[in-house]
Amino acid sequence: MATAPSERSRVRRAPKRADYDRETIDAILDEALVAHLGFVADGQPYVIPTLHARVGDEVLIHGSAASRMVTLLGAGVPACLTVTLIDGLVLARSAFHHSMNYRSVVVLGTARFVEGPEARERALEAFTEKLLPGRWDEVRPPTRQELKGTRVLALPLTESSAKLRTGDPVDDDEDYNLDVWAGVVPLTLAPGTPQPDARLREGITPSPSLAAWGG
Amino acid sequence: MATAPSERSRVRRAPKRADYDRETIDAILDEALVAHLGFVADGQPYVIPTLHARVGDEVLIHGSAASRMVTLLGAGVPACLTVTLIDGLVLARSAFHHSMNYRSVVVLGTARFVEGPEARERALEAFTEKLLPGRWDEVRPPTRQELKGTRVLALPLTESSAKLRTGDPVDDDEDYNLDVWAGVVPLTLAPGTPQPDARLREGITPSPSLAAWGG
Repeated sequence: MATAPSERSRVRRAPKRADYDRETIDAILDEALVAHLGFVADGQPYVIPTLHARVGDEVLIHGSAASRMVTLLGAGVPACLTVTLIDGLVLARSAFHHSMNYRSVVVLGTARFVEGPEARERALEAFTEKLLPGRWDEVRPPTRQELKGTRVLALPLTESSAKLRTGDPVDDDEDYNLDVWAGVVPLTLAPGTPQPDARLREGITPSPSLAAWGG
Repeated sequence: MATAPSERSRVRRAPKRADYDRETIDAILDEALVAHLGFVADGQPYVIPTLHARVGDEVLIHGSAASRMVTLLGAGVPACLTVTLIDGLVLARSAFHHSMNYRSVVVLGTARFVEGPEARERALEAFTEKLLPGRWDEVRPPTRQELKGTRVLALPLTESSAKLRTGDPVDDDEDYNLDVWAGVVPLTLAPGTPQPDARLREGITPSPSLAAWGG
């Protein structure tokens, strides 16, 4: 459980659902496929979905060198990266206590550019492997030109927190007598049957990474 | 497709994936179960996952009257509400062109408090029905006290945009000859078997709303 690493990263609402352990935080960041990155431009907050990959004590994001988000973050504006995993509908006996089960992580801080083609290549490897473990070794590696046009940013996990809701609905005592079904409908991000690219050459079967993953 | 309602809500990266039609925007907001709400406090952006429900030309969120987010938003600070639906892993022939299929909406603006117990009750109905259509009529309605402790905020959809990536990977021409499987692994948020509350009274079967939904 640990304690909040800073006052501003302390979970304020429902603090009993907070968890500041890096093990918990890392597991949520690693499972989530998409992060929501917040930054401010001209006084207006923007929240942009983006791919991320945790490597050690940092979470990486990447984008075009021409992107406003990348430029601002690289210049050191304050950022907030949030991921949320949806685990279930919580159906209570009263409308008021309906909720969701979820696991989320909020990371506050300032990002730094990951510099140099080799470090950027390692980052691109992390993004590719996060989507599908084993994929990196099966595909064409990035060219010098591709690495040049990509910027990678690293946000430290020093100010991070997790928040989780799990388990049954919590109803008011008197409501447990109601004739209403209550419980949880689990939700998971489930893979379907892989759809081959329309331009896939004949005779090419799913690569080992996909087969290992259940494709 | 339409055009961006304002310069700041114009999609800057990959503008060919932008869609400013309300029909597209509404469908994405309605399908998404969780929104990420961005606001600024003491110069630091925060991105907080929260339930939302679109009603007409506004998207509603709710929270405790004691919540900092609710207090700030009700005071009229600039906000950004973003939802993202994850549709698939895009597996290209090169590491560089790996991506995700997704549908996202970004709403910029300033929220207003929804005032009065009746309007707040309608909002709570919208949240409950969004989780599970038909649920509202099966459960105990909110009490006066519950409505008093809840604040509802409405953010207009006047400055909103959608961004979508669909379909096959886009590889470089020369890469289509590579011996690499490429395609899309579809991803959907799939419901599992409903788990009855440990304190569910004997003999209570899943309510019609749950049965209708496939539970």
